[in-house]
Amino acid sequence: MNCEILAVGSEMLTPFRQDTNSLYLTERMNALGVVLLAKGIIGDNRTVAAAAIRQSLARADILLLTGGLGPTMDDVTREAVALALGVDVVRDPDILTALYKRFAERRIPMPENNARQADVVRGAQPLPNPTGTAPGQWIDTVVDKHRKLIIMLPGVPSEMKAIFTAECEPRLREIIPPSFIAARMLRIAALPESEVDSRTAPIYTTYTDVETTILAANSEIQLHFRSTAVTKDRAQKRVDELCGRVEDELGEAVFSSHGETLEQVVLFFLEMRGETLSTAESCTGGLVAQRITSVPGSSRSYLGGAVVYANEMKTEFADVPTKLLHEHGAVSRPVAAALAEGIRERTGSTLGLGITGVAGPGGGSPETPVGLVYIALADGRETVIKERRFSGDRDRVRWLASMLALDMVRRHIM
Amino acid sequence: MNCEILAVGSEMLTPFRQDTNSLYLTERMNALGVVLLAKGIIGDNRTVAAAAIRQSLARADILLLTGGLGPTMDDVTREAVALALGVDVVRDPDILTALYKRFAERRIPMPENNARQADVVRGAQPLPNPTGTAPGQWIDTVVDKHRKLIIMLPGVPSEMKAIFTAECEPRLREIIPPSFIAARMLRIAALPESEVDSRTAPIYTTYTDVETTILAANSEIQLHFRSTAVTKDRAQKRVDELCGRVEDELGEAVFSSHGETLEQVVLFFLEMRGETLSTAESCTGGLVAQRITSVPGSSRSYLGGAVVYANEMKTEFADVPTKLLHEHGAVSRPVAAALAEGIRERTGSTLGLGITGVAGPGGGSPETPVGLVYIALADGRETVIKERRFSGDRDRVRWLASMLALDMVRRHIM
Repeated sequence: MNCEILAVGSEMLTPFRQDTNSLYLTERMNALGVVLLAKGIIGDNRTVAAAAIRQSLARADILLLTGGLGPTMDDVTREAVALALGVDVVRDPDILTALYKRFAERRIPMPENNARQADVVRGAQPLPNPTGTAPGQWIDTVVDKHRKLIIMLPGVPSEMKAIFTAECEPRLREIIPPSFIAARMLRIAALPESEVDSRTAPIYTTYTDVETTILAANSEIQLHFRSTAVTKDRAQKRVDELCGRVEDELGEAVFSSHGETLEQVVLFFLEMRGETLSTAESCTGGLVAQRITSVPGSSRSYLGGAVVYANEMKTEFADVPTKLLHEHGAVSRPVAAALAEGIRERTGSTLGLGITGVAGPGGGSPETPVGLVYIALADGRETVIKERRFSGDRDRVRWLASMLALDMVRRHIM
Repeated sequence: MNCEILAVGSEMLTPFRQDTNSLYLTERMNALGVVLLAKGIIGDNRTVAAAAIRQSLARADILLLTGGLGPTMDDVTREAVALALGVDVVRDPDILTALYKRFAERRIPMPENNARQADVVRGAQPLPNPTGTAPGQWIDTVVDKHRKLIIMLPGVPSEMKAIFTAECEPRLREIIPPSFIAARMLRIAALPESEVDSRTAPIYTTYTDVETTILAANSEIQLHFRSTAVTKDRAQKRVDELCGRVEDELGEAVFSSHGETLEQVVLFFLEMRGETLSTAESCTGGLVAQRITSVPGSSRSYLGGAVVYANEMKTEFADVPTKLLHEHGAVSRPVAAALAEGIRERTGSTLGLGITGVAGPGGGSPETPVGLVYIALADGRETVIKERRFSGDRDRVRWLASMLALDMVRRHIM
């Protein structure tokens, strides 16, 4: 079975607000074995909303609507659903009584437009709202000879969740044939998307019962696998099997097979191997430290580090010899190595990471152009140095440098 | 004129990912005077995508599509647009040559599937992509006797923005009749939303020709003002007038009146006053350093700092006396002050910032609960210390601490 979600509200068509209810509903519907076909956001316009509702009902078995159930003239969901189905709305006397009672209890007169919240699409079942005034509505009907469910929920997240959990999930479980979705994600660093695809497509295309999505984001590649089957075990088995074969193909380029972030994986291995890390960052300016310390418990393996923006700081905090800075310049292979070795010595960590480069947009030169980055990892026996020329703006150069630095630590300790 | 936005990508139909490109595009289109009618998210399915495209074209003058332009078989936007328009796709020899050249420069053979990125919908104009491989596409056509623009952009935000700014905005400005929208935003730190609203509502409600939106996000409050008028000057005058009155009311709580970030404002004032800054961070783990150094040119006023996670590092890098750490504990008022004073001395900066706290979720105690943070700012004459008990998860506590720290610097030098 499949569903669509429509969020109704003009404020979600501004640059400032986003629909987030659909993330919750997607997760709950997926858990019931229902796939999301599409989702949409529409404004407070009855005609546009009715057209969108008709289009969704032509494709999906279940349509979930959030928002637009309040008392104002902007709240058009009830009328739009009625218009799409070719029926009228009827004022429900029980809901109306409850509304009057609610206002009376607070000793305030009920504004006239509040009565609109008692309007129910003909044929709909009201869904009690334990925390707000607008009830949800449940419609079980036939459109073009197909059974369709239409579920209308308030836009306030807490009310939406309360009604969905108490009223909709039990009803849906009775209607939806039990099926289960298993999902997993592999995360890959330092490989281009096209290479990941060309190496893995011969594997994943043979799994017609597993849906594979490749996604490039923030300089990592994610492979998402999803499968639906009659039992949870069966779906999970197929996803795990495909995951395993893809991992065999990509080897240690896969840094995460259960959704962990790169920094989580680095900290996991550091702790497992009894290693400790420190950082001396120039061009990344604390980004690597910040990413590592964003993980709870990072203090067990990460000792600390220095943000050595000015040259004097490189000497003060990581003992980089002034001579080295003068001879080779701050952005150079020897200075990267000296940063890594110096911070390791100073902090007493087993591993030291040193990063220097030109993040841009200014500060570049023919010898050290914008995007040039040196990253060094010292373990006391040897120091590995990588040179890269990253393209993109300041944020991107810094982010790519932090990805490579963390991945160097990961590969070293794995 | 009006537009719709469709984001293409199955990953945005999972509970884990959300389309954010549409927020940027909405803001830019609004600035051009174009209203957003609806937006949608569709999966990597050519038929469903083509149907959604047809529906959008039936309503909107302009259709913006993001995502689905990559090299893999999952990337269906090109084919879906062609299907919706009833035309075919043609492989563009110039784009193909550029792709081969790009891979040759990196000395890696081009995987065969990359050639798909050279496929152009018949009648479309390719839009060069300065930072990635997939070009955008621009279609100016007639559907059912109405002129329609279809703009296809990559899903990677940086590429989408680069192409939209360089290629689409100039073309759109020639096509769209000029309308006069003025917009401004005030950003406010360290005041609750309800207080901002109750203090400013008496002012902004008298400006019926200016639309005011209050938004709370990332521990700051944004006040957005928009006005449409018969001339640009008239619209701008009304917005500026309202802005000025609201600024008078809120005073120095307003940290930005032209969209600057807090870190940009801090660096601007540091440079203007000839001050320099250094940081010693425990619980924020480099977040403040990273935020400051994300601003181009920050090296002029920010010397560097230390991430002093372990107690020994607090002594090693910021000269915090061991005795102080033992007597008061790492999370204490005196240690925050010692961090600020120590890092200031060590780096020779005019201002030193020290931050210590419990970001959680672990590490809390009855004396130092999760969320407790001390922030100190030393200027050589006096050291100001603030104590806060933030609520929320690790990320939120760290973020709120970094906001307060930066705001303390701002208020000090203003």
